[in-house]
Amino acid sequence: MSATMHMTDDAGTPELVALLRDSRLFPGLDEAACRRLAAPAMTMLVARRTRIFEQGEMPGAQVIVSGGRVHLTASAGGRAEMLVETVRAPDLLLPAAVLEDSPYLLRAVAATECRLVLVPAVTFRAVAAAEPAVAQAVIACLARQFRRMTRQVKMLKLRTTTQRLAAWLLALRPADGGGTIELPYDKGMIAAELGMTRESLSRAFAALSGEVLTVEGARVRVRDWAGLEAVCPRDPLIDD
Amino acid sequence: MSATMHMTDDAGTPELVALLRDSRLFPGLDEAACRRLAAPAMTMLVARRTRIFEQGEMPGAQVIVSGGRVHLTASAGGRAEMLVETVRAPDLLLPAAVLEDSPYLLRAVAATECRLVLVPAVTFRAVAAAEPAVAQAVIACLARQFRRMTRQVKMLKLRTTTQRLAAWLLALRPADGGGTIELPYDKGMIAAELGMTRESLSRAFAALSGEVLTVEGARVRVRDWAGLEAVCPRDPLIDD
Repeated sequence: MSATMHMTDDAGTPELVALLRDSRLFPGLDEAACRRLAAPAMTMLVARRTRIFEQGEMPGAQVIVSGGRVHLTASAGGRAEMLVETVRAPDLLLPAAVLEDSPYLLRAVAATECRLVLVPAVTFRAVAAAEPAVAQAVIACLARQFRRMTRQVKMLKLRTTTQRLAAWLLALRPADGGGTIELPYDKGMIAAELGMTRESLSRAFAALSGEVLTVEGARVRVRDWAGLEAVCPRDPLIDD
Repeated sequence: MSATMHMTDDAGTPELVALLRDSRLFPGLDEAACRRLAAPAMTMLVARRTRIFEQGEMPGAQVIVSGGRVHLTASAGGRAEMLVETVRAPDLLLPAAVLEDSPYLLRAVAATECRLVLVPAVTFRAVAAAEPAVAQAVIACLARQFRRMTRQVKMLKLRTTTQRLAAWLLALRPADGGGTIELPYDKGMIAAELGMTRESLSRAFAALSGEVLTVEGARVRVRDWAGLEAVCPRDPLIDD
């Protein structure tokens, strides 16, 4: 890991057992199983932008996000880094790689300050094999993550860049029905999230500009929400 | 299900128990657990092109592919149907939807004649919760499927259409080092698999044509494999 990191030597402490027991991740996990997970585990507070692991690395531990948000990103061959997924506490970071004992396919970077619990990979695999409550938690987590990834493949394969931008803007529609959206992060990151180059994002904004919306720096004024919905009708099997 | 279908009334028969026990899907599953899965299950032989389930449908059963290949496809808003994944026996069809008791996000269509085992969804969920061997099989299956889907998201987000076509052609390189590839299916389906329109596929073939390869109908003659590799270097974290 890089960047600021504060590691606590609390393996097996009652605080860590309580943290695992009270997390919504492992409902039904009994005290003995919690202690088995916690015994060799450690907690960590990491600053925003800390690289938690790198793509291609072998998992040494199952990282549990118990506070904060983590970005899973991908890069290859000189192309700009793409955002693939945002993981929100409580959740497991890429349990598929840990359980398959295979290299991470994605990079994990703290998007906020994060509280992490690290359970050694060998322990995590052994406990998941022996404890039905942990196996069920892993199944639920993998199933949710698989379905999110499937929605993303559908979005990328079935929608044009302009439609993806429209869907993304629609998800930011203010609850009060207003017409102003403050972009939550810069356009490079929006392009990365939507799986397009910055040039394609600019063209997509241009395609929507005029009747439907106007862009002023980091502020988008939507004049015609129905027009935006017409560009990309909501699909419950793609959009969350 | 549509198209030809041959259902066998063999719920709980010794043949079905043996089929589940001998499948590579559930290693370590004991006889009693096999019988519990098999008791309400049925097998089915379906013809090529049979629609096994539709996107948006609620799963009534966990479908186990015990012979043949199944295409998982997606469609939305008038866009051509896209191929998302090919599932090869033995494997589970979208266990994430069954375990989450949520609508299928994809359509399943038999790509060959297929032998299927259908276990009622309620039974499958109960056995996965109670039998560690089934839970482990589900975890392994979900982990593999999640990683395949992650590779696909990386491919779609990090590679241009020309690079995707180059990677696809490189995967078909003959073992004898020859330069001729017979396209395994029509260009509409290739475009669907690669997540692009037919027009984009034609432009990608045009971009590679000349020095690197020539296209004659369903036959591609590659003159310069190194040139193709230069367009899209193999990446073990994207390509299988």
